[in-house]
Amino acid sequence: MSVVGKRVARAEGSERVKGAGLFADDYKYFGMLHAAVVRSPLARGEIRKIDFKTIAKIPGVAGILTYKDIPGRNCVPIVIDDQSFLAERYVNYIGEPIAIVVAENRQTARLAAAQAKISIEELPPLLNPLEALNHPKIHLFGNDNIYKHIHIHRGDVKKAFADCDVIIENEYHTPYQEHAYIEPQSMIAIPFPDGSIEIRGSMQCPFYVRKAITTILGLPENKVRVIQCATGGGFGGKEDVPSLLACQVALPAWIFKRPVKLIYDRTEDMMVTSKRHPAYIKYKSGATKDGILRAVEAEYIIDGGAYSTLSAVVLFRGSVHAIGPYKCENVDVHSYAVATNKVPTGAFRGFGSPQILFAVESQMDQLAEKIGMDPVMFRKKNILRVGDTTVTGQKLEYSVGLEETLDKVIEKSGWTPGKSKEDGVGYGISTIYYGVGLGAGGKSMARTGARVLVHADGSVLFSVGTTEIGQGMTTVLSQIVADELGAPLDWISMMPTDTSRVPDSGPTVASRSTTMSGNALKDACIKIKSVLLEEAASMLDCSTGDIIFDEGIVTGGGKTIKLLDVIKSCFAKRLPLSAEGWYITPSTSWDDNTGQGDAYVVYAWASNLAKVKVDKETGEVNLLKIWAAHDVGKAINPALAEGQIEGGTLQGVGYALMEDMTTNADGAIRNPEFSTYIIPTASDQPEIVPIIVEHPFPGGPFGAKGFGEQPLMGVAPAIANAVYDAVKVRIKDLPITPEKVWQGLKNK
Amino acid sequence: MSVVGKRVARAEGSERVKGAGLFADDYKYFGMLHAAVVRSPLARGEIRKIDFKTIAKIPGVAGILTYKDIPGRNCVPIVIDDQSFLAERYVNYIGEPIAIVVAENRQTARLAAAQAKISIEELPPLLNPLEALNHPKIHLFGNDNIYKHIHIHRGDVKKAFADCDVIIENEYHTPYQEHAYIEPQSMIAIPFPDGSIEIRGSMQCPFYVRKAITTILGLPENKVRVIQCATGGGFGGKEDVPSLLACQVALPAWIFKRPVKLIYDRTEDMMVTSKRHPAYIKYKSGATKDGILRAVEAEYIIDGGAYSTLSAVVLFRGSVHAIGPYKCENVDVHSYAVATNKVPTGAFRGFGSPQILFAVESQMDQLAEKIGMDPVMFRKKNILRVGDTTVTGQKLEYSVGLEETLDKVIEKSGWTPGKSKEDGVGYGISTIYYGVGLGAGGKSMARTGARVLVHADGSVLFSVGTTEIGQGMTTVLSQIVADELGAPLDWISMMPTDTSRVPDSGPTVASRSTTMSGNALKDACIKIKSVLLEEAASMLDCSTGDIIFDEGIVTGGGKTIKLLDVIKSCFAKRLPLSAEGWYITPSTSWDDNTGQGDAYVVYAWASNLAKVKVDKETGEVNLLKIWAAHDVGKAINPALAEGQIEGGTLQGVGYALMEDMTTNADGAIRNPEFSTYIIPTASDQPEIVPIIVEHPFPGGPFGAKGFGEQPLMGVAPAIANAVYDAVKVRIKDLPITPEKVWQGLKNK
Repeated sequence: MSVVGKRVARAEGSERVKGAGLFADDYKYFGMLHAAVVRSPLARGEIRKIDFKTIAKIPGVAGILTYKDIPGRNCVPIVIDDQSFLAERYVNYIGEPIAIVVAENRQTARLAAAQAKISIEELPPLLNPLEALNHPKIHLFGNDNIYKHIHIHRGDVKKAFADCDVIIENEYHTPYQEHAYIEPQSMIAIPFPDGSIEIRGSMQCPFYVRKAITTILGLPENKVRVIQCATGGGFGGKEDVPSLLACQVALPAWIFKRPVKLIYDRTEDMMVTSKRHPAYIKYKSGATKDGILRAVEAEYIIDGGAYSTLSAVVLFRGSVHAIGPYKCENVDVHSYAVATNKVPTGAFRGFGSPQILFAVESQMDQLAEKIGMDPVMFRKKNILRVGDTTVTGQKLEYSVGLEETLDKVIEKSGWTPGKSKEDGVGYGISTIYYGVGLGAGGKSMARTGARVLVHADGSVLFSVGTTEIGQGMTTVLSQIVADELGAPLDWISMMPTDTSRVPDSGPTVASRSTTMSGNALKDACIKIKSVLLEEAASMLDCSTGDIIFDEGIVTGGGKTIKLLDVIKSCFAKRLPLSAEGWYITPSTSWDDNTGQGDAYVVYAWASNLAKVKVDKETGEVNLLKIWAAHDVGKAINPALAEGQIEGGTLQGVGYALMEDMTTNADGAIRNPEFSTYIIPTASDQPEIVPIIVEHPFPGGPFGAKGFGEQPLMGVAPAIANAVYDAVKVRIKDLPITPEKVWQGLKNK
Repeated sequence: MSVVGKRVARAEGSERVKGAGLFADDYKYFGMLHAAVVRSPLARGEIRKIDFKTIAKIPGVAGILTYKDIPGRNCVPIVIDDQSFLAERYVNYIGEPIAIVVAENRQTARLAAAQAKISIEELPPLLNPLEALNHPKIHLFGNDNIYKHIHIHRGDVKKAFADCDVIIENEYHTPYQEHAYIEPQSMIAIPFPDGSIEIRGSMQCPFYVRKAITTILGLPENKVRVIQCATGGGFGGKEDVPSLLACQVALPAWIFKRPVKLIYDRTEDMMVTSKRHPAYIKYKSGATKDGILRAVEAEYIIDGGAYSTLSAVVLFRGSVHAIGPYKCENVDVHSYAVATNKVPTGAFRGFGSPQILFAVESQMDQLAEKIGMDPVMFRKKNILRVGDTTVTGQKLEYSVGLEETLDKVIEKSGWTPGKSKEDGVGYGISTIYYGVGLGAGGKSMARTGARVLVHADGSVLFSVGTTEIGQGMTTVLSQIVADELGAPLDWISMMPTDTSRVPDSGPTVASRSTTMSGNALKDACIKIKSVLLEEAASMLDCSTGDIIFDEGIVTGGGKTIKLLDVIKSCFAKRLPLSAEGWYITPSTSWDDNTGQGDAYVVYAWASNLAKVKVDKETGEVNLLKIWAAHDVGKAINPALAEGQIEGGTLQGVGYALMEDMTTNADGAIRNPEFSTYIIPTASDQPEIVPIIVEHPFPGGPFGAKGFGEQPLMGVAPAIANAVYDAVKVRIKDLPITPEKVWQGLKNK
């Protein structure tokens, strides 16, 4: 247990700092073509005529491909197969891919794609998600405009509301959020003479990419290798979208038998790739005067855009989190993911929960105020503890550190709720939770493989199927392998993630890389360790139970030997020090009709406390400080865990205060560049106080549970509550811009 | 058992025929440098001065590196660490590497290397191996000029010779043989920003290459990935030599942080890379008049050249095979591998046995003639059968098909020994054997790993540590995997061999790829099959023992289901269909002093019958037809087995009749090009009749044992015996050129 828990430096840190890492655009191949995508200029329409004659003559253009050139199925498989890879007859959003141009250089490809002549007969677009429920269906696929409906039902809401002393009822709205990863979407396809194809690029989910390529090219899985390049951020934006890019390069690579590269420029990336679902939430909650949450009734509508992508599972997570981390016996929540003729929305850190948690936590403060109870005390009366049952009927058996996170932010901040303070200054709290892993919504994918290979010189190479996307997975998993083998950390290296090295291990999403790959690696290490233990026992002349492995030193029977000598002895005997590991999560359950089930194996918990100062003249909110306490089970690397807290919190600050993406009347993203879509910069960063709380998860490696998404999730409501505390203006529509606060101050 | 035993087409056949395969020189990288080697022009000397000033100024030259630039140890590890990567003070053969020049293109690098000024003080070279035993030692390493001495001793030779009715005593000589692979030595090194390095090239033994790179760069094994490119022939010539090339590209790649490629041109390749050891053999053998081989006394000296490379193990194999496949209770063989100041010799198909078998089989015919017995009958009285004991004291328990091979060539040819025939026409027989695998000489490396990964669509990807070098390994192993899993052959694909994918699996030599990788794959498949069996049993509602898997169809309990449905069912349950396999050969034993032990786990057996017509005017030997029967245990793919017989036999024809490589007075190869070193062309190919005999090896996959080297081994003595049969001229010095035969005819 020597390396786990230590603040060791990030494995790829030096590479990143020096700018040496190999991102997709750093790979150059001889004979490589460059792709650009011809896209729909209209939100909805029927393609009448495509004329590529002019652009085909542009010098350097190697070819133009449409759906007719697809050898396999014209489909990008995600959850429901409703999305074509290239539009055939209808287009459903501005930016929908129609054709791929490939050229000898990137400039020519982009130029040609921009000049393609496509005649489309416009159809009336559905742009407002609130109209979707009753609007004629816009898709050929499905019966209506509803991708998914979930109903969470528990107790008797009507009766319960009648018993409540206070009831709060509001509507909330949250906007798009753009991932704003540093590296835009980037992909390369390389065809091989044996009929296989290799995809290299920026991605979170290589197995999704493989599935997309086998679908469009009609290839078996063993002919498609997907290798992740260094990836400059994902945040969910590289969960499903890379499958589209991979198709956009694989098709021309396959047809022209040359490598093909495609890098979206920033505007294209922001225009056409997925974002956080905008949400419309009607929320009614009631409590007794002694502070018991009695009833919740809510309607949660998320705007899925033109294709379903991940909306169904985003909705699942949002629905499970729909009443926050509280006990409540009477609940009635209807959630809908709906279709509109806008850019498809998808995965984003938090995955459907930040939206509804904004409503939940805003409601909690309003209930507390109405009862006349401080918001901390009100939460303490309702939060989940070990032994309690969640809104989905799941009994919590272990690892529920919510109360400690709440106590810690209060303690560290020194805040006393209700205590008089400087004018314009306010404090706001939020308490939240996060179901770790895919849960019942992605049960079939809740398995992960790993491989560990120990060499004769002691050095170790491991492979996993999850990806390093800046979250520090490589480092954390290396620490786990080091301790499981009792080897020094610097013996351990990870191979870049490559679908040909491990079985399908599912996606790198849902804060699952540490627990899933960690457990699979543990499984592999245990197999190797058992060989090492037997050998060490024979060398030390003691029983295996008496032996301790620690950072390269093996002790037992009163003697000490080097781990390297044990390894050498195994090699001399030709014993294999190589193993596969496998992990499946314990069973989860779910019923879409009742919304009941053991939704996730374990939950992470967090409390955020924000301190703001509001400028009463301008409405500007100055976030002075934020305390963020997270129950992570066990921090394998506290420095990286704190890094996740800091990064996620800042991304939450952007969501709360400034990130304001909207569409124009045509259904196009109005502000697809960083000059108009504002994200926090270094100067916007408040003082963030990361606090790690550890309630070990018995099923996690060394007690760890995933939590990487959680730091973003509770920031917006904490700030909204702080703004209210400061100036008594309740903002229910994110982001909390100066204009809205000023308007609120004016309306008072 | 549906695919094994079938004549399926070679997996990479279409690629090869179309010229589409990616050989090392087909890989191009941006920023790549090209290397050339500065070499010693003298056979022995002391380096006085190196002046690179002039060549450093040649435009395009990026740098020149000497031993001073090596970050690790200046050593290319093979068996004994006596070989420097770059000469420091002394040079020991013409062509010894002294420095590496890298330049922006290949022409410049070669030009600059040729112009390097090196002043060397000449020392008297040792060129004649027969002088080596008593010559002052030429190396700093070791005590004398003997790399290895082996003594095989059995019974009482002196007494036995006294009892013999006939004794034959001769001296034999065999020359260098050049591998003449189609693709010259080729290698690329690519440095990565994470401090790792990737080597790609033409090779048989990626794990040897890895060891060399870790040694010279001082890197751990997990930082070096070695990946085999398509390889245009090896024949042993790409066993150890690629380690040198890999060092020659890895050092500049590491220092200049750019990819580096090195391709030897044909002359350089033939001048400086390893060849078959020239051999000098004194052989005395005696028999009783009723045809029992009673005694053998021999001295076997092989010329190892300037560094030991593989000479010790080549000598081991040659010594084990020193009396041929016969029973003989009185044996005294002294073998020596000696040092000379010539190009280091090394591995070549047969590995030390073709030389001595030429002597053995020539002796056998002479003994038979002297007794007055036909050569077939004489052999029949002495050949090894099940239950017999070899010269090393090993009792043969199984898989001894020698007699059947002998019967088959006689039967197929219709030859009756001694029967009158056309003038100038003769028949010659040889019976030989081959110890399969590394045997006791390479015991520590006699282990192999494999991985098998079954995908959800049924397609399978496997990885092994041995290499495809034209022998058809990919196809044969795919057949084994298909049958072990009960899957159709077209579901199976192999990854290119890559050291990061499997544990160190030893070299691809000694005809070991089918048995070793085949058994390791079998081990992996059995693990996967057990999961599939359980699942199938539950689907078919019968016991696992009743189930049969056959090419994608599963039957049991009177029902039939698709294997794909069983696989899908496993995936739905998240059962892993991926496994590691491991195989170690059963124990072998060896004592260098007595030459006794169980040298190999199993032996392959062969008989060759050659029919020649000798032109009495010119001495030219026209090989009319050759029957080659080989006991292969089980032919996994009879077409490929026959291909190995045909190719090996033709390579044996070159060795027997035309390949005549010699050195000049300075110790340089006199004929390092195909205009002067003559190998058989299509027009030289005789009619070859391949005959497969199958005495299953219980320890091999489906009964197979390796035999790929054997087809070359018995050709030369069969032809020499046929020439004698035709014109009564006994040639004891290979190759059997027209000049030698003409001289023999003249001297009669």
